[in-house]
Amino acid sequence: MGKKLTKRKEDYSKWYNELVVKADLAENSDVRGCMVIKPYGYAIWEKMQAQLDIMFKETGHQNAYFPLFVPKSLFEAEEKNAKGFAKECAIVTHYRLKNDPEKPGKLIVDENAKLEEELIVRPTSEAIIWSTYKKWIQSYRDLPILINQWANVVRWEMRTRLFLRTAEFLWQEGHTAHSTKEEAVEEAVLMNNIYAEFAENFMGIPVIKGMKSESEKFAGAEETYCIEALMQDGKALQAGTSHFLGQNFAKAFDVKFANKNGVLDYVWATSWGVSTRLMGALIMTHSDDNGLVLPPKLAPIQVVIIPIFKSDEEFHSICSVVDPILSQLKNKGISVLFDKRDTYKPGFKFNEHEIKGVPVRIAIGPKDLENSTLEIFRRDKMEKEIINIDEVLIKIDFLINDIQENLFDKAKLFTNSNIRKADTLDEFKSILNSNGGFISAHWDGTSETEEKIKKETKATIRCIPLNSHKEEGKCVYSNKPSIRRVLFAKAY
Amino acid sequence: MGKKLTKRKEDYSKWYNELVVKADLAENSDVRGCMVIKPYGYAIWEKMQAQLDIMFKETGHQNAYFPLFVPKSLFEAEEKNAKGFAKECAIVTHYRLKNDPEKPGKLIVDENAKLEEELIVRPTSEAIIWSTYKKWIQSYRDLPILINQWANVVRWEMRTRLFLRTAEFLWQEGHTAHSTKEEAVEEAVLMNNIYAEFAENFMGIPVIKGMKSESEKFAGAEETYCIEALMQDGKALQAGTSHFLGQNFAKAFDVKFANKNGVLDYVWATSWGVSTRLMGALIMTHSDDNGLVLPPKLAPIQVVIIPIFKSDEEFHSICSVVDPILSQLKNKGISVLFDKRDTYKPGFKFNEHEIKGVPVRIAIGPKDLENSTLEIFRRDKMEKEIINIDEVLIKIDFLINDIQENLFDKAKLFTNSNIRKADTLDEFKSILNSNGGFISAHWDGTSETEEKIKKETKATIRCIPLNSHKEEGKCVYSNKPSIRRVLFAKAY
Repeated sequence: MGKKLTKRKEDYSKWYNELVVKADLAENSDVRGCMVIKPYGYAIWEKMQAQLDIMFKETGHQNAYFPLFVPKSLFEAEEKNAKGFAKECAIVTHYRLKNDPEKPGKLIVDENAKLEEELIVRPTSEAIIWSTYKKWIQSYRDLPILINQWANVVRWEMRTRLFLRTAEFLWQEGHTAHSTKEEAVEEAVLMNNIYAEFAENFMGIPVIKGMKSESEKFAGAEETYCIEALMQDGKALQAGTSHFLGQNFAKAFDVKFANKNGVLDYVWATSWGVSTRLMGALIMTHSDDNGLVLPPKLAPIQVVIIPIFKSDEEFHSICSVVDPILSQLKNKGISVLFDKRDTYKPGFKFNEHEIKGVPVRIAIGPKDLENSTLEIFRRDKMEKEIINIDEVLIKIDFLINDIQENLFDKAKLFTNSNIRKADTLDEFKSILNSNGGFISAHWDGTSETEEKIKKETKATIRCIPLNSHKEEGKCVYSNKPSIRRVLFAKAY
Repeated sequence: MGKKLTKRKEDYSKWYNELVVKADLAENSDVRGCMVIKPYGYAIWEKMQAQLDIMFKETGHQNAYFPLFVPKSLFEAEEKNAKGFAKECAIVTHYRLKNDPEKPGKLIVDENAKLEEELIVRPTSEAIIWSTYKKWIQSYRDLPILINQWANVVRWEMRTRLFLRTAEFLWQEGHTAHSTKEEAVEEAVLMNNIYAEFAENFMGIPVIKGMKSESEKFAGAEETYCIEALMQDGKALQAGTSHFLGQNFAKAFDVKFANKNGVLDYVWATSWGVSTRLMGALIMTHSDDNGLVLPPKLAPIQVVIIPIFKSDEEFHSICSVVDPILSQLKNKGISVLFDKRDTYKPGFKFNEHEIKGVPVRIAIGPKDLENSTLEIFRRDKMEKEIINIDEVLIKIDFLINDIQENLFDKAKLFTNSNIRKADTLDEFKSILNSNGGFISAHWDGTSETEEKIKKETKATIRCIPLNSHKEEGKCVYSNKPSIRRVLFAKAY
């Protein structure tokens, strides 16, 4: 496992980078800005995918698959969207390699195989999908279309970090088409609620639901709904977004439908997505100086059992006790690993499963067999106790629920205690410099002020919380009148 | 639904193309050679993925994710592999667009954002994965590595057909690393067996397991194992391949491991994959002139229930009978659709579900309610009967099993009766021209002869069957001695 993890207080960013690698989640690849998601990291992502997929299907969505490439002429059709992504597009210009005449065995781009029209590797799929929906939609009977896609996308970011910001990432993108504005807005709100439910109940991450300001919203959207979470270093992380796209894409691609009376109108749209960035949020919300901490609902291994033995005989005695526990746990749908490897010592295994965040660890040795006991350890609180073997199933059941709840409660307490009101710019700056976290402040509603605050403090408007009530006040920066507080923070 | 499907006998190829679109499986996109997989087609692919994923995990494999892009210098490292794919590579050369100074609102490639090294969009991932494995493997304790990836790949094909040959397709690619040659060969054989089991038991497609000849094997492999299936038009389709890669990639990327005695050796490798091409095999094996026919194990909707009514009252009476059936079927894990749409008439629905291959259709109207009956229809045999409502669950259970078996048996009979021996070139040609199918013939083992036969007849060696026994004979083309028969066919 190598040397110890950097402590969060010493260098939070370094701690994160080391943890991702040491917990075997992901690593940088030989392709600039692209990561390799390792099996253990991918297994967590699969659990997240599976649960989200259930929630999408329960709300009437179906999966489909659209092309990786977007021809430039389609890409640029919705101008705001195109402008928003133009600076970070990977572009395919050729379709063939040939032998390098000067270097035997090497290849060069075949200049005779230049594409007539360049292809953009999708940074998001609105353009290719709406050019397809045009063929699918004629009448109100073709609506709504409720489609989701699991896919990879590419955004050529200059500064990348594992999971948080990578040139290629995995995500899901929902793209829906509706006959009325009301229905489309409802859909955007519904999906933002589903993201919030998923974040809180499965990832154990408390989130604030809100709307983005004009300058932070998705390029091409009318409104962007979002969920925002607070990381342990006091920086916010946008964990999911859901966009009401109005008729912008329908107009760009000329997608009209005939209503029941035969009248033609443009179709209303939404899109919504979460990505492997959620892995970053998961890590940063719960983990500690000992490594990863995972909520049991997303842990690939919920329980690990480590035998402690010196002889084959001892090992067999332990197996005779462990085997029935294994089959009982499997019957209950609890994922359990009996770590029998004889190539590693128990101490190494303890450390490995601790840094990988396995929620419950059981150790059992010859002394335990004598006493009919075992040692059980919960990763979240780093607490261990000796229990009677008969109690093990009840105890595991309890721990799996309790760890899930405890992680959420702890994070919720942290988030709640890190939302602070600021009524002057000095207060605002002082909070940012001392605690960070969310700052609830009045804002005059203009992009100019937002930009100035960002420039001066590095804090941005994370969202206008959906549950905020109207409150007369004065903008923390311009002193102009304001009707509600919004949430600022430095953000990932 | 438009006009009727072209009949298979009239134009098999046209029948296929029309069927894919009319059954709502996929369609061509605005990107040359790339398809849109529609929700119904994708739902079938999801069922295939889910089952394969279970089978991979049961045999100890884990999923992971590697980058979409392969830097040219890595891509060309294994020369045979690179040469095999060089002519069909999509190449990313730039990473930014900018405003077109001459056309406001339009974008052009920013020539200042040219990549130092071109990136190949992966046509297969051996190169990027083995450059990663180099970092993961030091000792025998790091082996075996048993990893699978679900991903999209791009091969710039000139002539494309939905599912069968598309520029972008979805697939899984397994990439394993082993300490001995024996273990790697075992793995390649194991995965080919798993593909065969999946094809036969889930897709209902009988396959012949074999090995590829030198000229048909994967670029960079030592041996390619494969499963070959026969389509209704007498052409063969390669349904899956599993490659023993020897130490080729380990040598290209310098991946060595220390064995228990500390001696260094190159690592042994396999790779194996199946793709959305399997959708084409599924369609062409079972479907008929009325549309798609699906084996129940892969049908997104196994049972559709269509109410026939004129009044709301009639509809409610039908619902009171159907509702308990629905919940009983759902409890049994049978996917059922109660097609209540009032925007379409029963005849339209009958036709739609027939062309989409729903295995079992139930119709129920006012007369049925009087008699406590319903009409049940099996798609594979296009047979309907009237049964008592009490029998419905038993009948559905029976049909779901029987249709699955019947489809396999029928295809098996077809395949078996279309393997013909040819001992002269005239016989060979005459079979090809009359029936097609597999031709079992002696071959002298040289690539030259193979090439000549291909040129003269368009038939290729599909495989050297694994179950073939030695048999002295003379090559059907060169008359030179041969020790076993191999299988020829025209192929997709």
